[in-house]
Amino acid sequence: MKVKVVTRILEANDRIAVENRKLFNNAGVYVINLMSAPGAGKTSIIEVTVKNIIKNLRIGVVEGDIAGTDDAQRVEGLGIPVVQINTGGACHLDANMINEAITDLPLKDLDLLIIENVGNLVCPAEFKVGEDMKVMILSITEGDDKPLKYPLMFQESSALILNKIDLLPYTDADIEKIKRNSLSLNPSLKIFEVSCKTGEGISEWTGWLQSLVK
Amino acid sequence: MKVKVVTRILEANDRIAVENRKLFNNAGVYVINLMSAPGAGKTSIIEVTVKNIIKNLRIGVVEGDIAGTDDAQRVEGLGIPVVQINTGGACHLDANMINEAITDLPLKDLDLLIIENVGNLVCPAEFKVGEDMKVMILSITEGDDKPLKYPLMFQESSALILNKIDLLPYTDADIEKIKRNSLSLNPSLKIFEVSCKTGEGISEWTGWLQSLVK
Repeated sequence: MKVKVVTRILEANDRIAVENRKLFNNAGVYVINLMSAPGAGKTSIIEVTVKNIIKNLRIGVVEGDIAGTDDAQRVEGLGIPVVQINTGGACHLDANMINEAITDLPLKDLDLLIIENVGNLVCPAEFKVGEDMKVMILSITEGDDKPLKYPLMFQESSALILNKIDLLPYTDADIEKIKRNSLSLNPSLKIFEVSCKTGEGISEWTGWLQSLVK
Repeated sequence: MKVKVVTRILEANDRIAVENRKLFNNAGVYVINLMSAPGAGKTSIIEVTVKNIIKNLRIGVVEGDIAGTDDAQRVEGLGIPVVQINTGGACHLDANMINEAITDLPLKDLDLLIIENVGNLVCPAEFKVGEDMKVMILSITEGDDKPLKYPLMFQESSALILNKIDLLPYTDADIEKIKRNSLSLNPSLKIFEVSCKTGEGISEWTGWLQSLVK
């Protein structure tokens, strides 16, 4: 019985995700669903990404959080359109939330829309929102055991951003193990090693992203 | 309709949590539900806690993960009873999972049972499992904005362990802001600043825990 309910929720979600995808295609906007555990650096990655490629692309952002508008305020400071979704109790964004949020965005004036999901390594990977690709961030401070413990997100993502590599000397995390286990789950995963603090690796990430959008 | 389904699931969960609580009380075992985001250090906290107080208390562990048995193997190395729950897709433990898992534990021979929840700052806080108290861990590398973004877990927890404080000099996190906002959500929250790596603050945490169990 429980399984049936969950299946029906996912089916309804996927139907709305297809609608969203049509809206995005018609507007000519490329859409990323950005996922990670809490505090891995989703908003920081958005900030450095926007600063690196703002001259070439018109970017908009949807911020997903349980509560609060901290992230939307950070993004608004960059001078780009942003909408905040507060999910209340829900631990992930779904297609319907995105369907409502995008009515407040000038989709036709955007080249790239970045959707920042709720901080959670589990459920966000289960809900399509109409995106062109999913991208996940893993902070190296979270440890090297995460791919095998949270496999779905690694399998569903097109790219993995390994963030906070400036902290690598101060942790026991084995970055080669992270990469090896991530690729065993998803051989086509594109991996970037970056630090939002030092700027290391950011241009590789933004260069690749830009090549997909244009 | 959706709300009704969710309410019914939570009601059913709470009934089983009451049953679990009776089993724990009858066996004379004190139970902690340990929660955090992925990679904040739940298993490391269990390791240092067991090493610090194993002479005085008989401890057992339930490990909750989406997939894998890494954590159970780490705990087994300490020579104490451990059961691994693999939730499949579920992003949290519930009372029924615990009800089944504890049949494999010698409850009457334990003083303290530590239940390590799935790494997630959201849903674990919504599901009672029959515990005496909830304890949460926040790694300071996750940033100082987490209390206001994930308020429920801070409100539901009796204690907050701020872990990885050895990394404080290398991050921008404002630990006073974390403490201030956590206490504004939950004025009776007990806060410990610790490092599993250096051992700093661990004896304060284990001393307090031991005083509750005995």
